[in-house]
Amino acid sequence: MKNVGVAILGLGVVGSGTYKILRDHREFYKETQGVDLSVEGVLEIRKEKALALGIEESKIYDNIAEIVSNPNVDIVVEVIGGVEPAKSFVLAALHSGKTVVTSNKELFCKYWHELEKAAKRTNAGLYFEASCVGGVPIIRTLIDGMQANVISNLTGIINGTTNYILTRMTREGANYQDVLKDAQKLGYAEANPSADVEGYDAAYKLSILSSLAFHKKVPLDKIYREGITEIQSCDIAYGDELGYTLKLLAIGKNGEKGIEVRVHPAFIRKDHPLASVNDSFNAVFLKGDSVGDIMLYGRGAGDLPTGSAIVSDVIYAATHSDVKYATFKNTQQAEPGVKFVNDFRSRYYIRFTAKDRAGVLAKVAGILAKYNISISDLIQKGEGCENLPIILITHETNEYSVRRALEKIGMLDDVVSVDATIRVES
Amino acid sequence: MKNVGVAILGLGVVGSGTYKILRDHREFYKETQGVDLSVEGVLEIRKEKALALGIEESKIYDNIAEIVSNPNVDIVVEVIGGVEPAKSFVLAALHSGKTVVTSNKELFCKYWHELEKAAKRTNAGLYFEASCVGGVPIIRTLIDGMQANVISNLTGIINGTTNYILTRMTREGANYQDVLKDAQKLGYAEANPSADVEGYDAAYKLSILSSLAFHKKVPLDKIYREGITEIQSCDIAYGDELGYTLKLLAIGKNGEKGIEVRVHPAFIRKDHPLASVNDSFNAVFLKGDSVGDIMLYGRGAGDLPTGSAIVSDVIYAATHSDVKYATFKNTQQAEPGVKFVNDFRSRYYIRFTAKDRAGVLAKVAGILAKYNISISDLIQKGEGCENLPIILITHETNEYSVRRALEKIGMLDDVVSVDATIRVES
Repeated sequence: MKNVGVAILGLGVVGSGTYKILRDHREFYKETQGVDLSVEGVLEIRKEKALALGIEESKIYDNIAEIVSNPNVDIVVEVIGGVEPAKSFVLAALHSGKTVVTSNKELFCKYWHELEKAAKRTNAGLYFEASCVGGVPIIRTLIDGMQANVISNLTGIINGTTNYILTRMTREGANYQDVLKDAQKLGYAEANPSADVEGYDAAYKLSILSSLAFHKKVPLDKIYREGITEIQSCDIAYGDELGYTLKLLAIGKNGEKGIEVRVHPAFIRKDHPLASVNDSFNAVFLKGDSVGDIMLYGRGAGDLPTGSAIVSDVIYAATHSDVKYATFKNTQQAEPGVKFVNDFRSRYYIRFTAKDRAGVLAKVAGILAKYNISISDLIQKGEGCENLPIILITHETNEYSVRRALEKIGMLDDVVSVDATIRVES
Repeated sequence: MKNVGVAILGLGVVGSGTYKILRDHREFYKETQGVDLSVEGVLEIRKEKALALGIEESKIYDNIAEIVSNPNVDIVVEVIGGVEPAKSFVLAALHSGKTVVTSNKELFCKYWHELEKAAKRTNAGLYFEASCVGGVPIIRTLIDGMQANVISNLTGIINGTTNYILTRMTREGANYQDVLKDAQKLGYAEANPSADVEGYDAAYKLSILSSLAFHKKVPLDKIYREGITEIQSCDIAYGDELGYTLKLLAIGKNGEKGIEVRVHPAFIRKDHPLASVNDSFNAVFLKGDSVGDIMLYGRGAGDLPTGSAIVSDVIYAATHSDVKYATFKNTQQAEPGVKFVNDFRSRYYIRFTAKDRAGVLAKVAGILAKYNISISDLIQKGEGCENLPIILITHETNEYSVRRALEKIGMLDDVVSVDATIRVES
């Protein structure tokens, strides 16, 4: 039986989950994987936290040097999060030739090349399944399951907090602020929710996932990002009437014009498999040239689901002798020659408020036509009121055309306000 | 650059798809995987088929011996299907130390232990992702993605033909025979459809998948199997009224009482992620003790989707030096000590035709109560007719109790016939 020692850096939510899984499954892994995984150390300054989990005092460290110099530690699990001190700790482990397993999306998205360089130098393993979409094995799938395919499209619901909020807004017709407060009470959203609700968390993950899917480093700054804070529940209801569900989508496309990466709220048709991904569940939808459409669905966060991904990497590292690194050039920026699309194409849901006067629609339609935008659906509400909402969905068009057309529409005398612009993905 | 030679045994649908993928992606794999995969031989007696694909004449063989003795061939892809001659060919390849990649579910399900023994002897790789659920990477996920979990439940829609037929019966209210004929015309069903519609194909796959999920060999003969040939569209419609969708499910459970494996039509709630898996799409839903619920969705058959799984295994074999075999004892039967559950628990949809007389329902309810079966839903149709259908759904109960109760109900004077019994899964 092979003995493999594990150290866990940080006993927060994911660290504690990881510890519990390793502790409770030790015999199971011996039987089914032929490997004895023992936790040889934890790095945690809150000693009482470690003791409460039943960890022996002699294995609780407050100093990374003691862990990376411990010959019993083969694999270092980093679940601290954020850039520092996680980065220094991971580099120290790699320098000592320890394999690293991490759930740290921000670190990985920003310093992938640097970590990989360090890992290669000592031939250490570097695994990051837990950095994206929690327990869903999307990274292993991209590297070892879909690698026969040229992937043209990756669309994901990859942030649980925003999906929980949007699901409740959809079900209850409640407004954003009320649901957010409730989500914070229930632990689904942080006290400072901006990383989630502004789309940063999804953008980190999209950077990692689209880099793997498209075999080109997709840096964070190439990702268009828009959060859900401005979403009004009436738009969710109008969209529903037209057959759509609103989700915060992370979208990566790779086509002739280049790579297109964006995180923003979007309507999708109710019969799309992503439309029924609700609450804090996540899913990633991929399109490969051979496989066609596939989707992976599961829990994107939480102590045990993310711990499952961590321990899956630990077992993989413990039972495979060769490491397959990602194949990017060692650069933090985009490689020269890789093109990125800014003026992407989409359909658009537009809501504006107009005065109830003859000819308003004709003027609006005229402006849209000037920018080659054609209308596929239209609802007009509240007949007889002085001001009334008009909702329309366009056919596919360019982002820049829509922006310019909306500026012009906003300047019409009969238009009181342009209230909402939401992309519609097909 | 590593050069790896591939031979393809059989240029049927999957073989041709595999060849096309390898041919069209050769440069792509060099770039992204660092490996040059060349097709060094095909075994195909229909020479013109190979020539039409653009294969050089010198690489077309009609004799397995020439392929397994060819030093340029490292990996042998078996896509012939069925037991013989596929089995002899695979064994010949393994004896020569060639790694084998196969899509052959019947062969793998029946002779897994024998193939694995042969592979271990020469340290050859043995990969079978394409044997189950086409392009969906469910085998890699079970082996390398979910291995941190004790899996208690695996539920799948793993046969495309039956899902296509049931989807059309559901949408159109059409009857089984008509849709089957249409499916045969369109190439979704074979001229002799019994392997699909009687559930054999799903049972082969369930045997493989549940063996991997539960780390115990689950032999074919332990799987309860029931096809879709008796399904009437009126039951699909009544189920719809009660909030359920009908699917052919492959179900594996592993609990305290033992392993329970069954393939049969079943109603599932419309909001279950499997309920929206339509047409020829497949999906597998897993429950792990750490990860919770996860689902993989995609195309379960077809030249390119299954070819994608084959080539994914080929690349994996070409880029990983160590082989991880499954961990069963070398036996074709169930291991002694492994318990299997026959009298499984489920909810039941029951439809029977009764004479419109007072007291029928009371008598039926009385019999059910005697067997400890309680009713959760009931619809009675066609009031005023002489004979009328009564539809009920039970709470969870034992299979054997239901069978005995239905025998008694069938003997009641006022009951004309017991027309349908369909399990309801939650």
